[in-house]
Amino acid sequence: MTPASRAECAALDAADPLAGLREQFDLPDGVIYLDGNSLGPLPRTTAGRVAAAVTAEWGNGLVRSWNGHDGGQAWIELPRRVGDKIARLIGAGPGEVVVTDSTSVNLFKALSAATARQRGDGREVLLAETGAFPTDLYLADSVARSVGAQLVTVEPDRVVAELTGPLGGQVAVLLVNHVDYRTGRMHDLAAVVAAAHAAGALTVVDLAHSAGAVPVDLLGADADLAVGCGYKYLNGGPGAPAFLWCHPRWHDELTQPLTGWFGHAEPFAFSPDFRPAQGIGRFLTGTPAVLSMTALECGVDTLLAAEPMGGMAALRAASLRLTSLFAERVAARCPDLRRVGPSADAERGSQVSFAHDGAFAVVQALIARGVIGDFRAPDVMRFGFAPAFLRRVDAWDAAETLADVLATQEWREERFRRRGPVT
Amino acid sequence: MTPASRAECAALDAADPLAGLREQFDLPDGVIYLDGNSLGPLPRTTAGRVAAAVTAEWGNGLVRSWNGHDGGQAWIELPRRVGDKIARLIGAGPGEVVVTDSTSVNLFKALSAATARQRGDGREVLLAETGAFPTDLYLADSVARSVGAQLVTVEPDRVVAELTGPLGGQVAVLLVNHVDYRTGRMHDLAAVVAAAHAAGALTVVDLAHSAGAVPVDLLGADADLAVGCGYKYLNGGPGAPAFLWCHPRWHDELTQPLTGWFGHAEPFAFSPDFRPAQGIGRFLTGTPAVLSMTALECGVDTLLAAEPMGGMAALRAASLRLTSLFAERVAARCPDLRRVGPSADAERGSQVSFAHDGAFAVVQALIARGVIGDFRAPDVMRFGFAPAFLRRVDAWDAAETLADVLATQEWREERFRRRGPVT
Repeated sequence: MTPASRAECAALDAADPLAGLREQFDLPDGVIYLDGNSLGPLPRTTAGRVAAAVTAEWGNGLVRSWNGHDGGQAWIELPRRVGDKIARLIGAGPGEVVVTDSTSVNLFKALSAATARQRGDGREVLLAETGAFPTDLYLADSVARSVGAQLVTVEPDRVVAELTGPLGGQVAVLLVNHVDYRTGRMHDLAAVVAAAHAAGALTVVDLAHSAGAVPVDLLGADADLAVGCGYKYLNGGPGAPAFLWCHPRWHDELTQPLTGWFGHAEPFAFSPDFRPAQGIGRFLTGTPAVLSMTALECGVDTLLAAEPMGGMAALRAASLRLTSLFAERVAARCPDLRRVGPSADAERGSQVSFAHDGAFAVVQALIARGVIGDFRAPDVMRFGFAPAFLRRVDAWDAAETLADVLATQEWREERFRRRGPVT
Repeated sequence: MTPASRAECAALDAADPLAGLREQFDLPDGVIYLDGNSLGPLPRTTAGRVAAAVTAEWGNGLVRSWNGHDGGQAWIELPRRVGDKIARLIGAGPGEVVVTDSTSVNLFKALSAATARQRGDGREVLLAETGAFPTDLYLADSVARSVGAQLVTVEPDRVVAELTGPLGGQVAVLLVNHVDYRTGRMHDLAAVVAAAHAAGALTVVDLAHSAGAVPVDLLGADADLAVGCGYKYLNGGPGAPAFLWCHPRWHDELTQPLTGWFGHAEPFAFSPDFRPAQGIGRFLTGTPAVLSMTALECGVDTLLAAEPMGGMAALRAASLRLTSLFAERVAARCPDLRRVGPSADAERGSQVSFAHDGAFAVVQALIARGVIGDFRAPDVMRFGFAPAFLRRVDAWDAAETLADVLATQEWREERFRRRGPVT
């Protein structure tokens, strides 16, 4: 099933209907980039689009570009327009997603909105997962404290069981990471949401490691709120704005505390009283980050380009082929390396992780050889496979390089142990 | 005192030691831009710096650029490094300012932090100004509600009196707009802070319409917290990140509820428990918006370029010359036009405003003639004078154009009444 040689990989790559997607990216020579789940690579259209936003729209249009000037985009529409594009990747409808703020800030909004709606009558628990991305836990704890509720964490594979047990009746809001940032473990979202709803809780889903990597069906899963990241699989650039989705059944009921002027029904009426916008707009806060959103749109477009070839389902099939191939090759070449996270297709996202005592140095040694993966404390090597630009030969070569770095023990060299502020 | 002719303006401009600062900007031909207080113009360095951040740092450096790659900037340092530059414009020290999020989000953080510290013992009031920028009122109300406190607003010129009266003892936090966005009215910051402190309240100062336009001395005024905007007088580009300042006496005491991972003492330890960073870093939340912050730095640099010529004090003198000249010329040419806001130098920021029943259409007619000012509901025409790029001849010509638009009544034409979403 998996290719038995590099030559076979290359032949399959050449015949792959998705092969052309790679041409959308400017990838540096000599690099195999397995860290698109930390920062997606640069789309070829981004530099030109950002330059136009800077020079023509800002420089020449000046403040007039908020409404569109001389054929340029109307900046005011960006949060909803790019949000509508992201909606197509996550099983949401138009008018249900806004691009705004950071993932962390959006988590605060979503958790606050859901908690305010659902707590009371003995429901004083925000339920989250042990090992969730830390910012999720920090913000869930902050929201819980602010209203006198309590953050409770359980192991990811215990979420459904806890919701159906005695704790269930106390849960106001469930926060889940669709795909775990370290292990790649993926939830069956529909099952988790169903359990939460059966328990009387609302759901907030963090899509940071799934949007753009695996099919997401928020409406199908009947989730309540979701947030996600613009700079990972969406290829929006470093620190790109994040997004927030809210099920339309809540649009005119939920409110959130970051009531900035862009979330007002009439921002330019300059009314002293806050009146939330109808619909998803009430989750906006401050002035949209135009340059960053312009870059993000280019990134989202690289995934929408797969729609004629089957969209996220086709990308998911490619991703599974790549992660399987990489995992099998590493297992064959490095039998002692301990894999972290599920191996079953249905349970893993678009990454493969391994544990190693020298994980930090091994990742540095790989980077020195052009294979860019990621270290996650304390001992995880994480390899993300963004199917829009990675090929079977990349998975093959990466496994070979990893085997070589381990076999030669070159990772033990002093130079690979030096840590920067970001590790 | 003020020039008596356009020729005299031109001669004085030519001899002005600040004249060279204008060359830092790419201004469109045929435009007199009096809306730098809504969106500052494009610095000449921005396009190149942003292109380098996109192509070299992101495209080539990829995730390695967080720590700096191949001589490029270390992205991780941006919030503090650009913050330190802004500090030089607002009378703050290094390590006291971070660039992050939007003004609205930062208002929420600053107000929450100050309120949590100061309320109790009968102090249940957040005091703000009638007519403050609406987002300030919305967020102050949200913070007040979230803790069971109350937002009270008073006329700007009553702030000191109210603080020294019976209300004073109930005030936990005072929020003031240093310069009013509509009228240009400027507070004596030291006097306002002293009154607040005497009453036992903490102060949060909104510098959106003063940072980069007038001298600000936060440490001298002994303020507690401040926020400001990156895209107005700081020329950071549309939707540029905002900044937050906190007096060092509070750095290790105040906490804020948007506890994202970038505000953690060790973000990359991925600890499940939040431990706030020492110092100003605890006011960070999510991943920094690298492209937007890169653009913002270019904008801040255009103001720091004035340091050898006297810095903000010299720019302030230039601003007063320009606003005086414009106001005098308008008064001479349009004697019926009602001025809004103070005329005394010490009481006004860097703008001149007028009220007119047809304000929206008059501003549109002016824009059609290349004089870009701003309409602010319900009836205010606002003209901002950013001294780094405006000349005496611009003030002169703008007044002539305004007089002409009013004299010809051309603003009554139907085409000037059409409103876009942003007005």
